[in-house]
Parts: sequence; C-alpha cells; structure tokens
Amino acid sequence: MNIATIGTSTITVRFVEAVRKSGKLTLAGAYSRSAEKANKLGAPRVFTDLEELAGSKEIDVVYIASPNSLHFEQALLLMKKKKHIICEKPMFSTAKELEEAFKTADENGVFLFEAFRNLYTLNHDRLKEAVEKVGTVRHSFLQYMKYSSRYDNVLAGEEPNIFSPKFSGGALVDLGVYPISLAVSLFGKPKNVSCHVTMLPTGVDGSGSVILDYGTHTCTAMFSKITDSYLPGEISGEDGTIVIDHVAPISTIEFTNRRTGDQEQLAVQEEENDMIYEAEAMAAIIESNDQEKYAHFRSVSEIVIHITEEARRQAGIVFEVEK
Amino acid sequence: MNIATIGTSTITVRFVEAVRKSGKLTLAGAYSRSAEKANKLGAPRVFTDLEELAGSKEIDVVYIASPNSLHFEQALLLMKKKKHIICEKPMFSTAKELEEAFKTADENGVFLFEAFRNLYTLNHDRLKEAVEKVGTVRHSFLQYMKYSSRYDNVLAGEEPNIFSPKFSGGALVDLGVYPISLAVSLFGKPKNVSCHVTMLPTGVDGSGSVILDYGTHTCTAMFSKITDSYLPGEISGEDGTIVIDHVAPISTIEFTNRRTGDQEQLAVQEEENDMIYEAEAMAAIIESNDQEKYAHFRSVSEIVIHITEEARRQAGIVFEVEK
Repeated sequence: MNIATIGTSTITVRFVEAVRKSGKLTLAGAYSRSAEKANKLGAPRVFTDLEELAGSKEIDVVYIASPNSLHFEQALLLMKKKKHIICEKPMFSTAKELEEAFKTADENGVFLFEAFRNLYTLNHDRLKEAVEKVGTVRHSFLQYMKYSSRYDNVLAGEEPNIFSPKFSGGALVDLGVYPISLAVSLFGKPKNVSCHVTMLPTGVDGSGSVILDYGTHTCTAMFSKITDSYLPGEISGEDGTIVIDHVAPISTIEFTNRRTGDQEQLAVQEEENDMIYEAEAMAAIIESNDQEKYAHFRSVSEIVIHITEEARRQAGIVFEVEK
Repeated sequence: MNIATIGTSTITVRFVEAVRKSGKLTLAGAYSRSAEKANKLGAPRVFTDLEELAGSKEIDVVYIASPNSLHFEQALLLMKKKKHIICEKPMFSTAKELEEAFKTADENGVFLFEAFRNLYTLNHDRLKEAVEKVGTVRHSFLQYMKYSSRYDNVLAGEEPNIFSPKFSGGALVDLGVYPISLAVSLFGKPKNVSCHVTMLPTGVDGSGSVILDYGTHTCTAMFSKITDSYLPGEISGEDGTIVIDHVAPISTIEFTNRRTGDQEQLAVQEEENDMIYEAEAMAAIIESNDQEKYAHFRSVSEIVIHITEEARRQAGIVFEVEK
C-alpha cells in the first residue's frame, strides 16, 4: 500500500522512518504548503495542493501530522476521495468532529486510525496480559509530564500552536491522551471523570490531573507541558502491583506479588522507533479488513475524546472550533 | 509536663517510646478499659475510668489513640478538665466536631493538637525550604497506599473498626490525611477539591484519589488500604522537580534542576521513631505558649477536615456520627 504524509515536523520524519523500516507501507508522497520542506522527507512525489493529493490515484493511505485544528477538515476531504487515514493524536478537537469523521469513513469504505503509538506496541500487549496478575484492580496511576521548550515562548508572552486554543492545543490533549488512552485500552470506559488543570494565559492548560472512576477502581492520570516528572506508572490490585517506567514507550514492566514479594520483569526489548508497531498494525488491519481490531481502536478513540471533552468542560478549556 | 495515654495499640506503644526518648514529657498514666492492657505501657498509674483520668491533678496532657469515633467525646471531657490534648489523626469525624473542640480548647485555655507526625519532622521543614527551588509550583503528587491485613477481614465479610463507618474509618481519613495534610502544610488551602474512591461493602472507601486545585497548581493525592504502592512523591515547578520517597516518614528529598540536570540530596537522617519530633514540638508549644505555631497547626487540621469532609460528600461516604 502506498502512503503519503501531511506535515514535516519531527514526528513526520520519525513516521517516515517507521514506514521504511516496517516494509508494509511504501512512502509514495509528501504534502506540505512548502515544497522545499516536503522534499526533505524523500518521497518520490511532493504535493503542495491538498486537493491534488486527495485526487491522486497512487495514494492509498494518508498520515496526517498537521496542527491539531486542521486534522478534521483534511481527513474529511481525503476520506471522501477513498483514502485511509492515520491521524496523529489528538485526532480531532471535539467528539462531534470524531463522530462525523467515522461516519464519513464508513460511508466511503475507508479506515480511520488515531495514532496512539503506545497502544500498538509489544509491551502494551504484555502489560494487558500482566494486569491479570494483580487480581482485582483497585488503583492505577499513569502520567506524561514533560517541560516543552515552547513553554518558554508562552512565558515570553507568545502563543505557540501547541499552547493555543486556536490550534486546539494544551497539555491534556497533547500529552494527557497518552495515559488516558492507555487506561481506556486496558480498562475501557470510565463511569465518571473529574479534572482540574493549571490554566495558562493563552486559554489552554499547561498541566493537570484527571481521575477516571471505574467504580471498583480509580485511575489517576497526570499531564504537563510546563514541568518535568520522574514518576513511574502503577497498576495495583489486591494480589500485587505492576510498575511501568512510562506510558509511551513502555520499556519496563515489573510485577510484585503482594504476598510473596516476588518480582517479575515482563517487558520485552522494542524497536527504538516505536511508530513501526502502529504503522505495521494499521497496515495489517487495512489489508486484512480486520473489523474486530478496528472496532477496538475506534472505540478507544471515541471514549478518549469524550473523556477529554468532559475534562475540558470541567476545566473551562474552550477551543476556537467550539466557539 | 506529665502525660497520660488513651489506647493500647501499636501506635500508643510507639508514642510512649517517643515520650521516653524525647525527655520533654513524663509518662504519668495510661488509660484503657482493660487494666491488664494499660499495664503493659509501663506508666506509674493505670486508669480504667475516663472521668478519673480527667479529674487527676497530676496529668497535664493526654494523648488520645482510641478508635476515631471516640476521639471527640474523650477530648471534650478531658479539655473541660483543663487537659491539653494530643490526638491521633484523624482527630475528629466532622468539621463541626473539630470546630466545637477548638472552641472548647480555647474556653478552657488548653492546646489541642492533631498528631500529623509527618508535619513535625526535620525533613518536613527541609522539604518546605526545598520547595522554593522548583520555582512556580505547577504540579504535586503525594500518596500513601498500603495493603492492610484488616482488609483480609473485610474480604471475609467482617467489618473491622478501620473499615467501618461506625468507627469513622476508611482509607481517606486513615491514610489519605498524610498526603493531604502535607499538601496543606506546604501549600495552604486549596480552592477546589475533587474526589473519587473505591467503596467497600462496609460503606467506607478502600482506596481513592483526590485532586486539590490551587489554581496555579494542582496537587494529586492517592490513598489505599487495599493495595500496595511503590510510587514516590513529587513536587514540580517550572525550574525543577523534587522527588521524595514517601510522605510519612520523608527519608529522601532529591531536587533536580530542570535546566542543568544537577541533582541535590536535601534530606537529613532522622530518628527511627519519628513520633519523637511531634512529642517534642507539641511539648515546646505548650510550655512556651507559642500561639503562632499553634495557629499554623490548628489551621492545617481545620483545612484537612474540610477537604476530607468535602471528599467524603462527593464519594458518598457517610459516618455513623453524621446520621
């Protein structure tokens, strides 16, 4: 299958590398408003007109890594021309957009994937198996907190895309979706959500916490783009506790048996570029028309956007597209 | 000053040891309904009648470590007879009880202390100084989660005191008050609180999470008596991050400078029995009539009970005394 890319930032470069290494997809095109920038990705064809990309017969799949606020319009245009979509997280700004996009995907017989790279990895699946060991899960804690160099711009009075409501930015939707999507992948849809954030002068959050209430278990997720954290993640049950080094990528999974104190290391060594796993998995689902796996990932995207939308409502974060 | 104790469990034994080591207080009496049990504490006088203890001229201070639901009645009786009180946490079941108790303390010219042992230690003060180093605090995370052997009784269908609404039990008020009181001691009163818990069949919580929203900073506190956690605590700001090994006792305090990556170890070696620090501090405050320090600790108790009361309201935890 031939794939084209939208966007030219670091993540696109990394995805292109993953495509090359995976061997399941062939890089056939690269779109950017700047031909010079797109050229650097090394695709055989460069597009500077999105309509032209949409109409191009040789492209089967498009990877979208433009600013968040552009994903929806671009995905819709491309799906209507029968392109499968792999879209960077957060895929869309609102649940309404997500619903309409999946409807459009269905109508046009194409697949629409949100690139939660941490959910497609080997260690994600190892972790899912490991959760069985802790017995009744009673608490979990997951975080992604990393100081962004762009926050220096905010402190200087600017409004970089990633911290702008115009571009549907903020720490919750940028980094918070990693721990939240992992929780949803492992535990499903929570019954209730509570969220508090630290608001920035730009009108989006710089950091915050969300509690996902599963009734018999509470999951706490933290996110920040204005501080650094060294906290591991943890999933604990009545029989034991799992500690993971991080949510994306997951490099270590340690299980401690509460009664015996015995510890087991359950992670495997992964490829340094973890986007290989999502590229391969998505290509395989498209090729084999695997509706069951697709339904799972689609459901994760739907639940995550409902969580972040409710969290934003509680925290008072309003994106430009919602006004 | 002469002190008497109420209660004969492990914590009282530990407090009696702290009193002996501190040298600031003299163990003069021990109360229990069982003279045999009280005898084991080695006090010169044993009381089995609370009125008798209250009326005893040689006792200046009483340390209360009875079941939570008895603290209020016992403290009031004793304060009316001019005894200073050091009461185990959680001091009272409701904010209303706490308010009435402090009023009674004032009227009788006695001091009333909640034994948050983690707030009186050397490393608490080192941590408070260290917080200056992180710059604008943007996120903090504190936890106390330890599987209680009494939970085995709950699983067997019983209702041990510590998990009973009749005795004002549950993980939030038993262990949650450690991270919450530390947050209040460091950061003051939060603007908002959100809480979700895992309810047990007894009608109190087994574990949960609370977010303390400080506007410019969110603090997340987790607590559990039905799972084990290996997570450290963390306080992070724009300039760096502090990691502490635990909230009670705090044995390590590591500061990492975000820009340089330099790390500093800021904790000091403490006495193995950290109750020595509270015994000494409370005795010093009473002796010197230090109203300023007293006002601080009183304020922490007031804020903590308002937080746990609001958290219980949200989580639907109702104590017998409230019905």
